Amino acid sequence: MSQFRTPKPARRPEHSSGPKPITSLQNDKIKAVRALDMRKTRRDTGLFVAEGASVLISARDAGWSPQTLLYEPSGAQSDLIRGLVKNALGAGADVLEVTPAVLAKVASKDNPQAVLGVFAQRWANVPAVGDLAADQLWLALEEVRDPGNLGTIIRTVDAVGAAGIILIGNCCDPYARECIRATMGSIFAVPLVRMTQDEFALWQKDWPGDTAGLHLKGAEDFRTAQMKEPVLVVMGSEGPGLSERLTSLCTRRLKIPMAGRLDSLNLAVATALTLYQLRGSRLSL
Amino acid sequence: MSQFRTPKPARRPEHSSGPKPITSLQNDKIKAVRALDMRKTRRDTGLFVAEGASVLISARDAGWSPQTLLYEPSGAQSDLIRGLVKNALGAGADVLEVTPAVLAKVASKDNPQAVLGVFAQRWANVPAVGDLAADQLWLALEEVRDPGNLGTIIRTVDAVGAAGIILIGNCCDPYARECIRATMGSIFAVPLVRMTQDEFALWQKDWPGDTAGLHLKGAEDFRTAQMKEPVLVVMGSEGPGLSERLTSLCTRRLKIPMAGRLDSLNLAVATALTLYQLRGSRLSL
Repeated sequence: MSQFRTPKPARRPEHSSGPKPITSLQNDKIKAVRALDMRKTRRDTGLFVAEGASVLISARDAGWSPQTLLYEPSGAQSDLIRGLVKNALGAGADVLEVTPAVLAKVASKDNPQAVLGVFAQRWANVPAVGDLAADQLWLALEEVRDPGNLGTIIRTVDAVGAAGIILIGNCCDPYARECIRATMGSIFAVPLVRMTQDEFALWQKDWPGDTAGLHLKGAEDFRTAQMKEPVLVVMGSEGPGLSERLTSLCTRRLKIPMAGRLDSLNLAVATALTLYQLRGSRLSL
Repeated sequence: MSQFRTPKPARRPEHSSGPKPITSLQNDKIKAVRALDMRKTRRDTGLFVAEGASVLISARDAGWSPQTLLYEPSGAQSDLIRGLVKNALGAGADVLEVTPAVLAKVASKDNPQAVLGVFAQRWANVPAVGDLAADQLWLALEEVRDPGNLGTIIRTVDAVGAAGIILIGNCCDPYARECIRATMGSIFAVPLVRMTQDEFALWQKDWPGDTAGLHLKGAEDFRTAQMKEPVLVVMGSEGPGLSERLTSLCTRRLKIPMAGRLDSLNLAVATALTLYQLRGSRLSL
């Protein structure tokens, strides 16, 4: 943790005239970045890693500054990366130039990127139910397990302009690298709230509109149900679906019709179909 | 390859009185199953691995018999597994009982299952364009890269009752384990066709309805476009989207409206939204 919090000079020279690149995998700062692959380290430090120039530009545009920016200058997108380095230095970030060998150790194996940022996680406050506008759709996910699914859902929530996501109970970590990658930068745009099942049950009591759960035993076609806004959509876990307790809190139980022999869809797909159905009238080309 | 083709007695006794379980990771049959994790081996043998009792029941129900069934008898779902063993023996499969240690080496690290089947891949013939009914929607994917996306798309194609999928050019392998897992058994229900871009261009000329491409520069909202059936939906690759050549073959260029700053959705999500839009009138609870 201390690797990220070391005081440093307020501003360093442009990277072209800066210190020599880090070449050692044993460098403490490099080890600290690598350690963020572990959920425990992310929890203890409150930090996470986002990769790639376009994702880091999304972060900047959404008002996020990295605490640490790590880059390898020789590759493609060097103009974009230079811009990010300049911004990061201006914001007081620790900027680390590294060699390709060091980059290979900290970047994703799958589709490695030449620039990484270390950011502080943000958790939003529980939404004040009394203040909700009718068009503020919130999505609650119960014990979502797969970080790729969660990242895809965050991306979709951003695309439809929903208000945010509530993670109920023991969910996978939205700040895991696989999730961050799947968000394609939307992690910086979508408010995330954490609640236990008990907290959610208490909070949901005052929800002013419908609480709509997707359920295999739902009786209403998700395309024709007329909802009282604002709508709170609740989706269950990948395997078991919605728990009985959360199902009992729903004022509407919706189902997506299917033609195949299987009776389920991927969670991110089912969520996207529901969100587009509910938000569609507010979206246009 | 020969490991799967060794002649064997037509029928073996029930597994409870059968040969001793395989305990060695060096067993040739076990090594042959593990080798199917490599795309090259899958291509050379024409085989693939599917895991889990419910997936193997989907296979059986769809008329697929494994060449080899490998199981560890002590775990959960032992009743289901006994049924699968009986079916496989009846169909002349090579049935291998293994120890937990051997299973741990051949099963997926992520969510391991106690039963695996080795199946022969099936590739469908190019659909005869003249014979197509109006409701036969085909989906063409250009150079899809991510096996998780492809598996999710196969699952969705099954769910909406589309006719099948055409894989154009250099796609990821639908018989990769990650893809098979994401299909949740739909791999056994959805016809898959392979074409080069040239073959596709030639074949598509005679398509009797609209060829609809999803494109970021599309001018038509995918929800309101009136299509001439049968519809051929064409989706581009995860990063670059549809190539110029395939875009030029499309009679309709559709776009999914979005509210966020990002201008794209996950490929499996975009495909699902399109398929539900086009097939929705044929689906009911």
